[in-house]
Amino acid sequence: MPQLRLALAQTNPVVGQLSENLADCLQMVKDASAKGANVVLFGEMAATGYPIEDLAARRQFISDAEKAIDQFASTLLECGLADTAVIIGHPASIKDQTGQNQWIGATNTASIIFGGKVAAQYAKHHLPNYGVFDEYRNFKPGTDLVVFNHSGMKFGIAICEDIWQKGGPVSGMKNASVDCLLVLNGSPFEISKSDDRLEIIREVAQSQDCAVAYVNLVGGQDDLVFDGDSVMVDASGAIIGRGKQFETDLAIFDIADKNHIEPVLAEPIEHNDELWQIWQALVLGLRDYVDKNGFKSVILGLSGGIDSAVCAAIAVDALGSERVFGVSMPSKYSSDHSKSDAFDLAKRLNIDCRTEPIKGLVKPVEKQLRATDLAAENLQARMRGVILMTLSNLEGHLTLTTGNKSELAVGYSTIYGDSVGGFAPIKDIEKTMVWRLASWRNDSALQSGQTPPIPKNSIDKPPSAELRPGQTDQDSLPDYVVLDAILAAYLNERLSRVEIIARGFDEEVVLRVAGLVDRAEWKRRQGAIGPKISSMSFGRDRRMPITNKYSG
Amino acid sequence: MPQLRLALAQTNPVVGQLSENLADCLQMVKDASAKGANVVLFGEMAATGYPIEDLAARRQFISDAEKAIDQFASTLLECGLADTAVIIGHPASIKDQTGQNQWIGATNTASIIFGGKVAAQYAKHHLPNYGVFDEYRNFKPGTDLVVFNHSGMKFGIAICEDIWQKGGPVSGMKNASVDCLLVLNGSPFEISKSDDRLEIIREVAQSQDCAVAYVNLVGGQDDLVFDGDSVMVDASGAIIGRGKQFETDLAIFDIADKNHIEPVLAEPIEHNDELWQIWQALVLGLRDYVDKNGFKSVILGLSGGIDSAVCAAIAVDALGSERVFGVSMPSKYSSDHSKSDAFDLAKRLNIDCRTEPIKGLVKPVEKQLRATDLAAENLQARMRGVILMTLSNLEGHLTLTTGNKSELAVGYSTIYGDSVGGFAPIKDIEKTMVWRLASWRNDSALQSGQTPPIPKNSIDKPPSAELRPGQTDQDSLPDYVVLDAILAAYLNERLSRVEIIARGFDEEVVLRVAGLVDRAEWKRRQGAIGPKISSMSFGRDRRMPITNKYSG
Repeated sequence: MPQLRLALAQTNPVVGQLSENLADCLQMVKDASAKGANVVLFGEMAATGYPIEDLAARRQFISDAEKAIDQFASTLLECGLADTAVIIGHPASIKDQTGQNQWIGATNTASIIFGGKVAAQYAKHHLPNYGVFDEYRNFKPGTDLVVFNHSGMKFGIAICEDIWQKGGPVSGMKNASVDCLLVLNGSPFEISKSDDRLEIIREVAQSQDCAVAYVNLVGGQDDLVFDGDSVMVDASGAIIGRGKQFETDLAIFDIADKNHIEPVLAEPIEHNDELWQIWQALVLGLRDYVDKNGFKSVILGLSGGIDSAVCAAIAVDALGSERVFGVSMPSKYSSDHSKSDAFDLAKRLNIDCRTEPIKGLVKPVEKQLRATDLAAENLQARMRGVILMTLSNLEGHLTLTTGNKSELAVGYSTIYGDSVGGFAPIKDIEKTMVWRLASWRNDSALQSGQTPPIPKNSIDKPPSAELRPGQTDQDSLPDYVVLDAILAAYLNERLSRVEIIARGFDEEVVLRVAGLVDRAEWKRRQGAIGPKISSMSFGRDRRMPITNKYSG
Repeated sequence: MPQLRLALAQTNPVVGQLSENLADCLQMVKDASAKGANVVLFGEMAATGYPIEDLAARRQFISDAEKAIDQFASTLLECGLADTAVIIGHPASIKDQTGQNQWIGATNTASIIFGGKVAAQYAKHHLPNYGVFDEYRNFKPGTDLVVFNHSGMKFGIAICEDIWQKGGPVSGMKNASVDCLLVLNGSPFEISKSDDRLEIIREVAQSQDCAVAYVNLVGGQDDLVFDGDSVMVDASGAIIGRGKQFETDLAIFDIADKNHIEPVLAEPIEHNDELWQIWQALVLGLRDYVDKNGFKSVILGLSGGIDSAVCAAIAVDALGSERVFGVSMPSKYSSDHSKSDAFDLAKRLNIDCRTEPIKGLVKPVEKQLRATDLAAENLQARMRGVILMTLSNLEGHLTLTTGNKSELAVGYSTIYGDSVGGFAPIKDIEKTMVWRLASWRNDSALQSGQTPPIPKNSIDKPPSAELRPGQTDQDSLPDYVVLDAILAAYLNERLSRVEIIARGFDEEVVLRVAGLVDRAEWKRRQGAIGPKISSMSFGRDRRMPITNKYSG
């Protein structure tokens, strides 16, 4: 019986950076080969990064990607790796009947590289065009089934959505006597999605009577975070082993036949808990946005409150203390604890923190424009925005904006004020989850004998924007437990006001909250991107008109 | 021979405002009936407005739309209009085999209302999912052909994209012996699109040997502007008459047979010129955003430059002088003419204009933060943003941001500075077109014996941000004629840097411009919406990743 050793290679590509992405892949093949692997499977679009969005409509880009794949195949040959079958994802142009490229669009393709060249190609059949996905916009569907033999086994190919849809290539695996289905994926992290994936993968394995090797990308790309979490399942649906979650990784398996697979190098089957996963997603999303876009450091306002504290802790976990800069910007309404809690946080995180009072900057504007009430409140937030952006311009930091999902939902923020910044680390985290994450992060520090990063006072005190004396969030918003429950029903379940009220929520509160959500759409459109961790992130998953008079 | 009088009804719906939209439609049917019409055709989604985006995923919304259509049919009966065939667009839920609603998504539907009820329904086959359209995301495709008889003629139905695609319902009209194809449209304005539409319509008429009645919506919906411009074509492809462009309208035709059609009430066939069309699109886009979202007035900074002058002129044409407020915000670097040109403009437009110097507001920030160079330049722009937003908060105006497409493309603007505002009237107008529009608007004023609104000096002087002494745009950007040509090649044609250089542009300039475009993506994502008039508007038509290292 021939020896088959399969490597699942989780890489972290940068969109558009072809040569560097493929250099990482080459290193992975070398490492896998050194460990005896003779088949190496990469993720969806591992060569180009994913999603490429409208880069798919640039002919030169598709052509460059195809040239880079040919070059990659040649390089594998030069490196003595021609006998390793390498399966890698990239966009490809559609060929005409004579095999020539014709520009009628691109396909989402997997190339099977062997013997120093592209031996076969498979184009994704099912193009997801819901949620965060726009593949029907960017690609043309494939129609052919591709199977190939290697080391005495028969392999089939599928790409991501192909295994989530009935019919199509996956349903033909059993008839084609495929031993192992290779699946290339670009599947963004979402709470509990790992379990959903496993269920689908096991169902495919059992229904098609074949082993399934599932490889996912790793890394942050704008507002998506790919979590790796590759998995090997045998034909009975049993999980043999996994790739790391939220890290690049190489997981290796020996496959005797579809029912006899042994892990050579793999992670255990059990996952860390949900809060750990969410925290890692936020850390990776921020780190990759900062590093892939070439920022040396980040700056953020530290108010003493929970949101900025959690953002600062995420930033330190992502970038290290020396790359995170805090600014305390007290106003005449700021409490003493807002300053002391900010500096307590900075001390715990060992980050730079300076004080830039806004009183003397706000006063001349307030006086010249005779600003009062809401205008005066917003003015304070906007002057803080001016300070952060000026320091960003002077010192080269990326500005982080610290608003949470609950605030963003109801527009409880000042546009061009506390919303300024290029990245919003907790944009998809509702307020009640911000508290849970803060406590979880402190607990996990305690468990490993470290200082809890977030001051207890920031967790315990009533949230306040401190834009007028004695203000708290609950002056104008319902309790966050109630607010978040209404938001989940309105946003995630897409229920009507009447249906939400029927669940027992106060009618007046439901109508007010839903109205606030609708009216804040214009602000959200101008907001920074931030890592998606829910099934209904703003912007990618939920795309609503600004001009919208529907109130059902 | 029975008498057939067909009315093409162009309405201006507001997304989500079902009862008011249908009240407008009822009035149109009454007017048409009073003029003897017995068939009334409305636009695509005339009941709900278009595009409804992810409202399509809210079950209650689809159900409410269907109930509203049933109610509309009953009202027609009550009003003695049961013998008039009314064809109207709206979303509908998909029915199961027993005729019950099942929630597997919505279709983009046309209902044929007759005898006080919905007599038949047609669901759009071809769902556009390119450019500004996301219909594959929001709808399920229909599969059936619908024809019906009325007044001795046979009618077919198609919805918008259906006539742009080969195959599908339109190709079956000749076989079905259809006399007149009724087409419901939600076709956004684009330069020269009116001619493209006519070509398609005439081709369908000739190939299917039937008359074609084409009705389009009117009005602004966020960044789209629907221009009406409905048209009646006979089976030979001859244009019989049109609806108004950029206005609600009722065009009426007597149809003896497919080859004998007479206008009863219609616009002439010839169009106004392109600059007129663009100006009307910008005016309508702004007016509808302001009015549909309930703003009483707009405010904008007047720099004395061409961009703010053109925006102010558009605003006055859209809203009237009394609803437009200007603010001159001179800095220590502002030239005398920047102030005098701003006030000259205000006088010509008869709008309120005040002066709010920024010197005394910028200085304390500059001093406290030791801001110099770019940080100090941006600070001035940001303080102007603070002033505009504070006045907006105090007085309730919508803030307009006056950046043009060329600036937006290369990021030549200060985020949270001159970019602040809820709507960007000239967002899709490149700088060279701004100048053309300004001259055109002045000429058209002269021709009608009015004062040209835009000061000649604002048109003639070299453009400058005036953020440092003696600064002009051309210190850091190529001449705008060159810049706009490179941008057209890079954005609209999606050419590579190499291809653009091969056209004869300077290599260093091309590389710099393309690099600026790529790096400004994060700013554009946070920018205000504004009316699309080109085939490649930012945001709707061009959707690119922020993190993107491709440089081909």
